[in-house]
Amino acid sequence: MKVTMEQLQAFLDEQFPQGAAFGTLYELGDGSAEMMLDVDETHLRPGGTVSGPVMMGLADVTLYAALLSKIGLVPLAVTTNLNINFLRKPVANQPIWARATMLKVGKTMAVGEVFIYSRGVEEPVAHSTMTYSMPPQR
Amino acid sequence: MKVTMEQLQAFLDEQFPQGAAFGTLYELGDGSAEMMLDVDETHLRPGGTVSGPVMMGLADVTLYAALLSKIGLVPLAVTTNLNINFLRKPVANQPIWARATMLKVGKTMAVGEVFIYSRGVEEPVAHSTMTYSMPPQR
Amino acid sequence: MKVTMEQLQAFLDEQFPQGAAFGTLYELGDGSAEMMLDVDETHLRPGGTVSGPVMMGLADVTLYAALLSKIGLVPLAVTTNLNINFLRKPVANQPIWARATMLKVGKTMAVGEVFIYSRGVEEPVAHSTMTYSMPPQR
Amino acid sequence: MKVTMEQLQAFLDEQFPQGAAFGTLYELGDGSAEMMLDVDETHLRPGGTVSGPVMMGLADVTLYAALLSKIGLVPLAVTTNLNINFLRKPVANQPIWARATMLKVGKTMAVGEVFIYSRGVEEPVAHSTMTYSMPPQR
Repeated sequence: MKVTMEQLQAFLDEQFPQGAAFGTLYELGDGSAEMMLDVDETHLRPGGTVSGPVMMGLADVTLYAALLSKIGLVPLAVTTNLNINFLRKPVANQPIWARATMLKVGKTMAVGEVFIYSRGVEEPVAHSTMTYSMPPQR
Repeated sequence: MKVTMEQLQAFLDEQFPQGAAFGTLYELGDGSAEMMLDVDETHLRPGGTVSGPVMMGLADVTLYAALLSKIGLVPLAVTTNLNINFLRKPVANQPIWARATMLKVGKTMAVGEVFIYSRGVEEPVAHSTMTYSMPPQR
Repeated sequence: MKVTMEQLQAFLDEQFPQGAAFGTLYELGDGSAEMMLDVDETHLRPGGTVSGPVMMGLADVTLYAALLSKIGLVPLAVTTNLNINFLRKPVANQPIWARATMLKVGKTMAVGEVFIYSRGVEEPVAHSTMTYSMPPQR
Repeated sequence: MKVTMEQLQAFLDEQFPQGAAFGTLYELGDGSAEMMLDVDETHLRPGGTVSGPVMMGLADVTLYAALLSKIGLVPLAVTTNLNINFLRKPVANQPIWARATMLKVGKTMAVGEVFIYSRGVEEPVAHSTMTYSMPPQR
């Protein structure tokens, strides 16, 4: 693993200076990561469900953390494709969390998948795959 | 067209009560819509680029508007799949806008595509397709 | 499980009468399935790699088998969305196999994911997610 | 345009030596292409519909042609992501055709979209987006 959890959390805090709105890292493996997001009013859609963009944002940052565990704190990887399936309605006002796993970390491209869960729903509420374009010279 | 631009704007204001953060509708056709979003600091990522979730959020609401132009102000359509390709870097601190077109509006499913542009970049900065699950009885 | 492996194999043979070109079922769980495909010359692309459409075809039929294990031999589920990431080059002239798992089986929609492997490559060569639209009255 | 229609057709014939099963090129622009495929029994699924893998295969080769119109006859571009939405049921035993347009042709990555039509159905039967990884040194 090319980075510790503390180093990565500090790096994310610096990269996302708007506050902890992107979620909190609570597990980091070699090519995997888990983050949690406390859902507040600004994350909700009518009917009380967590909005899609909020889930996509959490998926994005969690997979980014999983990628950095493999390549180190290189700030130049760029998301080029994101696909997400919304599977079940999350519970309003309950935290959501994401489990991200890299499927491939290549020289020019990295791919991973993310499951998103909502407290109070046993099965995943969303599943996403993402592709990153990697900086040419690492 | 099942709804006017004014009716739709009022409906979106009501559905997204957090303010105009979701963008402003400025064109509505029969199965198409255009919306613009003024990018501010909270939408940026390090390096000054507009964040992916902000573009996904704009794509989502614009295609939702295009869908409602076909089915009327029915608040029950749910995004089930979103795919997005990020093509070019948007210009920081410049507005982004989205042009959405429905490809199919069926009884149980609707599909559409969205191009996202950034002021100062001639070609699209992102392209997204989305699927909606439709309420059973309309 | 709503169907045995023998029943499902017979059903697939009937549905795909062009011969075993779609692969052979060798494992069936409650919401999961594994199939193998012997790669021959007609499946190859220049450079000796297994073609994308061949992998997509195997992913499609394997996830269909996984779905039928949950809903029984209902021939009316239709693929509405397929997303696939090609991760690594398969070995030419070696079998490929697919492991499919349902992520959701709902009333109107089902979603699942498939990993594709190539004999001689340790990690997956492709990963796919798919959505099915379900027949209205089951 | 870096290649004529005749040069590209000859190149595809060579790349896909299994016969014309991949379709026939009938229009080529600067970053766009159209191909047609005569549907026969082997392309059908029960119920008489054209199978998904057949449509994906045609989408793949047509967008490849559109890409080659921009970069010349370089055989090393590789599909890394394909997303397809199946919109309507094609007519059995009728030709299908594909209109492909590049959305971006960059140094390391190219992205395009494809609409698929079926003779006898006015609106598109499928829509696909694809990403290619480009050979490092062109």
